[in-house]
Amino acid sequence: MELAAGGKMSPKITTELLKQLRQVMKSPKYVQEPVQAYIVPSGDAHQSEYIAPCDCRRAFISGFDGSAGTAIVTEQHAAMWTDGRYFLQAANQMDNNWTLMKMGLKDTPTQEDWLVSVLPEGSKVGVDPFIIPADQWKRMSKVLRSAGHDLVPIKENLIDTIWTDCPQRPCKPLITLDLSYTGVSWRDKIVALRSKMAERKVLWFVVTALDEVAWLFNLRGSDVEYNPVFFAYAVIGMNTIRLFIDGDRMTDPAVREHLQLDSTLEPEFKIQVMPYGSILTELQAVGASLSPKEKVWLSDKASYALTEAVPKAYQYLTPYTPICIAKAVKNTSETEGMRRAHVKDAVALCELFNWLEKEVPKGTVTEIIAADKAEEFRSQQKDFVELSFATISSTGPNGAIIHYKPVPETNRTLSVNEIYLLDSGAQYKDGTTDVTRTMHFGTPSAYEKECFTYVLKGHIAVSAAIFPNGTKGHLLDSFARSALWDCGLDYLHGTGHGVGSFLNVHEGPCGISYKTFADEPLEAGMIVSDEPGYYEDGSFGIRIENVVLVIPAETKYNFKNRGSLTFEPLTLVPIQTKMIDVSLLTQKELNWVNDYHQKCREVIGAELERQGRLEALQWLIRETEPLIRVQ
Amino acid sequence: MELAAGGKMSPKITTELLKQLRQVMKSPKYVQEPVQAYIVPSGDAHQSEYIAPCDCRRAFISGFDGSAGTAIVTEQHAAMWTDGRYFLQAANQMDNNWTLMKMGLKDTPTQEDWLVSVLPEGSKVGVDPFIIPADQWKRMSKVLRSAGHDLVPIKENLIDTIWTDCPQRPCKPLITLDLSYTGVSWRDKIVALRSKMAERKVLWFVVTALDEVAWLFNLRGSDVEYNPVFFAYAVIGMNTIRLFIDGDRMTDPAVREHLQLDSTLEPEFKIQVMPYGSILTELQAVGASLSPKEKVWLSDKASYALTEAVPKAYQYLTPYTPICIAKAVKNTSETEGMRRAHVKDAVALCELFNWLEKEVPKGTVTEIIAADKAEEFRSQQKDFVELSFATISSTGPNGAIIHYKPVPETNRTLSVNEIYLLDSGAQYKDGTTDVTRTMHFGTPSAYEKECFTYVLKGHIAVSAAIFPNGTKGHLLDSFARSALWDCGLDYLHGTGHGVGSFLNVHEGPCGISYKTFADEPLEAGMIVSDEPGYYEDGSFGIRIENVVLVIPAETKYNFKNRGSLTFEPLTLVPIQTKMIDVSLLTQKELNWVNDYHQKCREVIGAELERQGRLEALQWLIRETEPLIRVQ
Repeated sequence: MELAAGGKMSPKITTELLKQLRQVMKSPKYVQEPVQAYIVPSGDAHQSEYIAPCDCRRAFISGFDGSAGTAIVTEQHAAMWTDGRYFLQAANQMDNNWTLMKMGLKDTPTQEDWLVSVLPEGSKVGVDPFIIPADQWKRMSKVLRSAGHDLVPIKENLIDTIWTDCPQRPCKPLITLDLSYTGVSWRDKIVALRSKMAERKVLWFVVTALDEVAWLFNLRGSDVEYNPVFFAYAVIGMNTIRLFIDGDRMTDPAVREHLQLDSTLEPEFKIQVMPYGSILTELQAVGASLSPKEKVWLSDKASYALTEAVPKAYQYLTPYTPICIAKAVKNTSETEGMRRAHVKDAVALCELFNWLEKEVPKGTVTEIIAADKAEEFRSQQKDFVELSFATISSTGPNGAIIHYKPVPETNRTLSVNEIYLLDSGAQYKDGTTDVTRTMHFGTPSAYEKECFTYVLKGHIAVSAAIFPNGTKGHLLDSFARSALWDCGLDYLHGTGHGVGSFLNVHEGPCGISYKTFADEPLEAGMIVSDEPGYYEDGSFGIRIENVVLVIPAETKYNFKNRGSLTFEPLTLVPIQTKMIDVSLLTQKELNWVNDYHQKCREVIGAELERQGRLEALQWLIRETEPLIRVQ
Repeated sequence: MELAAGGKMSPKITTELLKQLRQVMKSPKYVQEPVQAYIVPSGDAHQSEYIAPCDCRRAFISGFDGSAGTAIVTEQHAAMWTDGRYFLQAANQMDNNWTLMKMGLKDTPTQEDWLVSVLPEGSKVGVDPFIIPADQWKRMSKVLRSAGHDLVPIKENLIDTIWTDCPQRPCKPLITLDLSYTGVSWRDKIVALRSKMAERKVLWFVVTALDEVAWLFNLRGSDVEYNPVFFAYAVIGMNTIRLFIDGDRMTDPAVREHLQLDSTLEPEFKIQVMPYGSILTELQAVGASLSPKEKVWLSDKASYALTEAVPKAYQYLTPYTPICIAKAVKNTSETEGMRRAHVKDAVALCELFNWLEKEVPKGTVTEIIAADKAEEFRSQQKDFVELSFATISSTGPNGAIIHYKPVPETNRTLSVNEIYLLDSGAQYKDGTTDVTRTMHFGTPSAYEKECFTYVLKGHIAVSAAIFPNGTKGHLLDSFARSALWDCGLDYLHGTGHGVGSFLNVHEGPCGISYKTFADEPLEAGMIVSDEPGYYEDGSFGIRIENVVLVIPAETKYNFKNRGSLTFEPLTLVPIQTKMIDVSLLTQKELNWVNDYHQKCREVIGAELERQGRLEALQWLIRETEPLIRVQ
């Protein structure tokens, strides 16, 4: 799955809300001095990709609820910046009070330049310092200052002051993960983190990303839909551990036991639990206590508020934290868990596709029904927790909308005449899945098969690629496109993203995309998706996605003893052979498909049998018949 | 050719020189206040890759004459930073006064960090502001300042003060290029530049790179070996043109006529000729004359001295100048010239290889003799000017030294038992060439053929690649490596660089390398090299290099009407079929080789015949026999 999609399509009437916001922008109750502009970024205080309802402030003020977008409201204007994925959606969801700023188009000004062009001299631009990442603050502040304006932090979030029915911040119970899932205890993770800190000569590390907190303590939550995380920060010193978390979650005996809160521990492993809201003052106290050369390590994407809590001379900022990098390399317990999760996920999908094959010709299955059925089959599997993202269930022209999510207004009925694309995944206690299959329940056209086969060739080119240790994923992106490029085709998204282990379905620091350059090199144990596609506007969408594990490759030679890597598919769901034009495959590609299907049949077949799902087993056996080249 | 190589290998004794330098570092005659460290970067005031002897200051002070390296001398230490290509050479050329800082190794400090660790509190670090690029100044200055030190510009170059026999700055006659070579007059280039300036709302453009000055005025020089450039700057206003150039070169009637110095011209095309050394004061005057919002455009690699001449608020800095980008896209006159140059170059190489085939078995041909012979054959061709870089003529283990240049101490005799690698090129008045061929004059081993064939597969993968308009070259780099990677092999250099049109053999802003990310997208008319390789330390080196032209590609479909591109080889020199293991080629690759050789035979054969070089013609015909797959 590439990215989340937006929801309803009728504009929100925002006249009254904007009036209220403009009032509080001048109200001494909230601002020391009036601000002439207020920025409402996407995102929460943890720079999360998926956010809780209480953090959907930009959607509240504008109506536009896509995953990316920044609103700026001035006394005269209200403008929304978003990217090509959301031009249509944003235009549909916003009323006439709003101007859509189409990012990526030549004539679209940056937020800073636009502000400079519309603001009266010497203006103040306000923003919630917890929501804006430090690097973004720096860039904006510089441009505004050089034009005679000021970017100012507004302590109280101004949207929250007018959002009367704002939902509460979630505070759901925690799940503890034992060693059989995590492979490494939280104590050992702290030890490893401190050794990285010592290497870089930093005394403190501030954990701001929610998945990093969850990973470090081997805890999971459900504060944010699809992402098994919980609202918390942590500050790790060489001898102290502070966990900032709210609610009565720390009264749960299982959690207390897991964190050894009531045990006699060496002091350096004693966790001090503090209120979520006290992070800023605690961090300021840490900052104030530092001597020269003592450093505090933060992600350079941490909020301006937390970054500024540490005096500049003591800040040590990196694009990827040591936790982000350690988390990306899965240990044996985690990869075994991911394997189990993918076997269960494949069982659910075999059931689904078998069911669809029977039901679609009746004309009663809509995109939403198919998505619900997928969830139903998944939820029957052991340790199922929730979906890992909103299911992309799309048929015909809807499939060409890359980030589509079916809603009643767009819901289309599956038929034997259209291609069906299903991009879906789940959170199991032992792993996270994300798989896309593109099917035809009738007879695909030669052109549809041709395009599908190019996409498949790209998928195989990445999956079977052998590359030296130390190679960055972005260098593999073109392999996925080569067959499409040869015919003048392409797709406008990256080829793969990192996948968490019962954590976020999108995680750094690795991936396979032409858009990035600063990704960390791939190494054995990392897990990414491999998902090339082809989309024909108004007609159909094709995508073939497996989650793959980076593994060592055996090669004939070994240049400079660097060693080589390749991928092993964790996803084991048949790729519909009906869609393949075998004449376009090389022998090597044909063998790859047959080997892959052989493995699906063996591994998933055994599990289907074990679960007594014999009809789905028959479907699997049919769908994994070896391809034969017709001469 | 990838990069220039260094020369002699015995250490220079620098004790006395360092003593003198440390004296002038404290001498009120040269410095306002004593400096505790002095930085001697590579490079000249134009950030040239190839520099004139008078600019080889780092080599003078240290003995190390590789193409990349920075020396820093403090009261106690002398240290040299260079990269992996030069570790051995630098260690051999420098005496015990010097510490080698191996860049890219984990424990090697940056120059800034090292300075901070060795300097006494509150030190001053001196550097020639004309030699250090502005971006580098900014980075160093920031780190030093935060540690309580100061980076200070020293007007007089301190090396020059102790370099008693420093060669004079060259001031050689100019060559004028008429429209048949350039396709566009200098006046039209100025018009186009001013339109780019208007687009970006800048009033002035400062031309600092030597090849940009040469290109803009359709002039060439020979102040720097291999690069047909001359020492000059230019400052272009919306109504003025100032050319800063020394010597009596402007008295040459041909040059005066070419630049219309004595004609009655519209004032905006009247060139004001000024002394080379007056650029700084003139630019300061421009800077002082500016009103708010008036900007001066400079490369962000321009020297600190020139950048600082313009107040910061008026600077407009970009990584690639509009001239750099315009220069990269060759017009029809230029591509036709490049074609002609490559035909002549191929004729010379057919003569050479025919000659080598006869002479090598006698055991009398050394690497130097072969290189000289290559130059001799090239110099017989029309409009030959000089070589475009120092010929890499290497046999056996020397071939594995990627930036090798034969010198008497290393000179090896070609034999029928070793692979021979020749990477060479020339400047012709109509174009620049750069070609590598790897040959065996006896019987190559199966392993040598295997490696050669992987390199060839990589070369073809790039050359035959089809990719969308707007693709950046770095995304094609992995295509060149895929066949090597499959067997665990690789090469540690980029795959290609931009090539000038009777200009520098290395030019931006495009290329094919995993190391870059900020390259400009490839477009039709750009010219790059395609030169994958494989190097086995102590045994042999293999590289296959063509210069290729980016051309539109015909494709079956045309996604989003973007159009597609591919490459056309300009280099037409046979690739030795004896080195190819045909069984490793796909049918498509086999066809590519046969088509390429067919074109060599037709185009170069006709020219060899025209020039009456009948023996070389026979050689060409033999070497271009179609490959046949043995079943």
